[in-house]
Amino acid sequence: MQKQNKLFIAQSGGPTAVINSSLAGIIAAAQNSGVIAGIYGLFNGLEGALKEEIVDLTHLSRQEIQLLRHTPAAALGGSRYIMKEEDYRQAVRFLEKQGAGHFLFIGGNGTMGTCHKLKQVAEEMGVAMTVNGVPKTIDNDLVGLDHAPGYASAARYVALAVKAQGADLRSMRTFEQVRIIETMGRAVGWLAAASALAQEHPEDPPHLVYLPEVPLAINDFLEDVQKMYRRHGYVVAVVGEGMKDVNGHPIGCEQFQNEEGTRPVIVGASEHLSKLVKSRLGLVARSQNLGMTQRSFSECVSLFDEEFAYECGRAAFLASMEGKKGRMIWQDGDLPLKKVAGLVQTYPNYFYDMGKKQPTSAFHQWLSPLIGSMPSYFNIHLKD
Amino acid sequence: MQKQNKLFIAQSGGPTAVINSSLAGIIAAAQNSGVIAGIYGLFNGLEGALKEEIVDLTHLSRQEIQLLRHTPAAALGGSRYIMKEEDYRQAVRFLEKQGAGHFLFIGGNGTMGTCHKLKQVAEEMGVAMTVNGVPKTIDNDLVGLDHAPGYASAARYVALAVKAQGADLRSMRTFEQVRIIETMGRAVGWLAAASALAQEHPEDPPHLVYLPEVPLAINDFLEDVQKMYRRHGYVVAVVGEGMKDVNGHPIGCEQFQNEEGTRPVIVGASEHLSKLVKSRLGLVARSQNLGMTQRSFSECVSLFDEEFAYECGRAAFLASMEGKKGRMIWQDGDLPLKKVAGLVQTYPNYFYDMGKKQPTSAFHQWLSPLIGSMPSYFNIHLKD
Repeated sequence: MQKQNKLFIAQSGGPTAVINSSLAGIIAAAQNSGVIAGIYGLFNGLEGALKEEIVDLTHLSRQEIQLLRHTPAAALGGSRYIMKEEDYRQAVRFLEKQGAGHFLFIGGNGTMGTCHKLKQVAEEMGVAMTVNGVPKTIDNDLVGLDHAPGYASAARYVALAVKAQGADLRSMRTFEQVRIIETMGRAVGWLAAASALAQEHPEDPPHLVYLPEVPLAINDFLEDVQKMYRRHGYVVAVVGEGMKDVNGHPIGCEQFQNEEGTRPVIVGASEHLSKLVKSRLGLVARSQNLGMTQRSFSECVSLFDEEFAYECGRAAFLASMEGKKGRMIWQDGDLPLKKVAGLVQTYPNYFYDMGKKQPTSAFHQWLSPLIGSMPSYFNIHLKD
Repeated sequence: MQKQNKLFIAQSGGPTAVINSSLAGIIAAAQNSGVIAGIYGLFNGLEGALKEEIVDLTHLSRQEIQLLRHTPAAALGGSRYIMKEEDYRQAVRFLEKQGAGHFLFIGGNGTMGTCHKLKQVAEEMGVAMTVNGVPKTIDNDLVGLDHAPGYASAARYVALAVKAQGADLRSMRTFEQVRIIETMGRAVGWLAAASALAQEHPEDPPHLVYLPEVPLAINDFLEDVQKMYRRHGYVVAVVGEGMKDVNGHPIGCEQFQNEEGTRPVIVGASEHLSKLVKSRLGLVARSQNLGMTQRSFSECVSLFDEEFAYECGRAAFLASMEGKKGRMIWQDGDLPLKKVAGLVQTYPNYFYDMGKKQPTSAFHQWLSPLIGSMPSYFNIHLKD
């Protein structure tokens, strides 16, 4: 075994339900390789290199790796610390001193930028360490790959939750008519769109799906809701959290005054829109933010996604062994980190029907195998 | 077959993930009995009798009954219409005209009151119709039975969601320290308490559990959070939505001024408390309301609960056949409707440790078999 043959791993960015699957895939592959002198985790992204907080993962048992695989959120901890130039050099020095021959960083587009910078600094310092990234995101906003690990599990939760809430509202429609459900995805509509997979029949909820990429004209929105209410007797509308109006102003940022003076209160797009439905259409409406459960709920992960995340970790380790450097690596492809870092893959026009305010059937066909089979509901209709 | 041997069924109150299991259990038992001339559903509780909106369920196939069993929320629709004296008489006349020999009403403590009244009016009018209730609730606030159908499934969702969110926050604790999670249960703490089943180890989240039955002194709360933060480096606290302060004032009802004048804005207990944690303790805190998903998410129901709900429906039908009247009937017991109607079973003192702000181990032992096995997480600790 070579001296510089230790593997270091870190995680960063927002948690997902399967980010630890990628970690487990890396550890298992490294253990199986027989050429790695030690496997170490940095705590809280690169902060772990600055604070010298590391943990030895070399001898995790098969059972521990299996449990890790099914544990949501970043087991090594995440970080929002903004690395300075000198921090990178300090991190590289620490990793070199520890005998790190390989470094793998699991994260989203921000993390890929940090990863790229680390690789550059290590090269400048003449430190021989392969640095690669492993993708993770719930938003599916990473460019270059069709779907990133983490997205399909969050998408599955969103589709299941919207389906359940659709049945919930349908059963209450004599006294409550409209529900505005808010998903994650500050800049991109992939998760909001996933809610459409709740539909078994064309009349099923969600009746309207709005994406952050498409500016929302409030009057059009109210007309849409009114129309759907007339058609179905109740309306489930889904919005991405980053919705903006036609002036580019975030929807759901209101001015309130209290004893401390005027201040903006961010009530969120769904709450703001449900208030408008109440005041302008006179319908009983409630908002529902699916919240952080949608990125962490490990009980209903997409099995495809969980395995994909694991295989991405494995592939990244194996590619590092083959000498790949400075790349984001997934199960069946890779890209230079600098072609990924900080870039955003928005939801494409061809997957959205602007007239119906619905993802297209092509989107359904694309997403369905990724999230796995959905439950069937039995609806009792008055007129059969 | 007798002329008056038709069975009518209605549902009311808030939806649950398994209320349709009880409906399925009734239908299957009635089909199997061979003595029922027809099985009908009233739409939207007793409103269906007033508006003459009924649906024939006599010939539902086995497959349809199976699908119904796993469809969340009230398939027949719920109602919040307050029945007047004359409405009851009109409903009884309609049911009599339809040939109803038996009426089963699935619902909570409010519905049991309506059910009792219907039975009285039918008797006064000399209409021979057995009227019985079938329990359902997510709150577990029905008196007389150890656990009501619906509770364990909502409890399982709460425990799973809090467990996932605990891992989520733990992985972010370098930049976010406190999460206040709000559960349903306006007057009772059964669901808030269920979150404690997320714990595998004593140090696991939720670190603090507050119940609506116990008035909350804000300063004590802040001290609790501070103490837990010092101990664990992050804090997950769970509150029931109906939390009150020591003066009996609902927590989370604030006064705001906007252009329309002063108005109370109900931000909810969790949002209010997370703001206090931010302003008074200087920690980064977020609130998270588990919302309506907790009562409707059918993907993770307690298998015990689902079967229990089905068997309650079956038992209620069979007891009606045996001539029982005016009772709330479940799988292994029954009570007169008037001993249940409108009453609330609060969370008992002996299940709560006031010092630790935690449900007791006796509560864990009681609830664990009801919600079924929970996932195991693998936590990586810095100091092992």
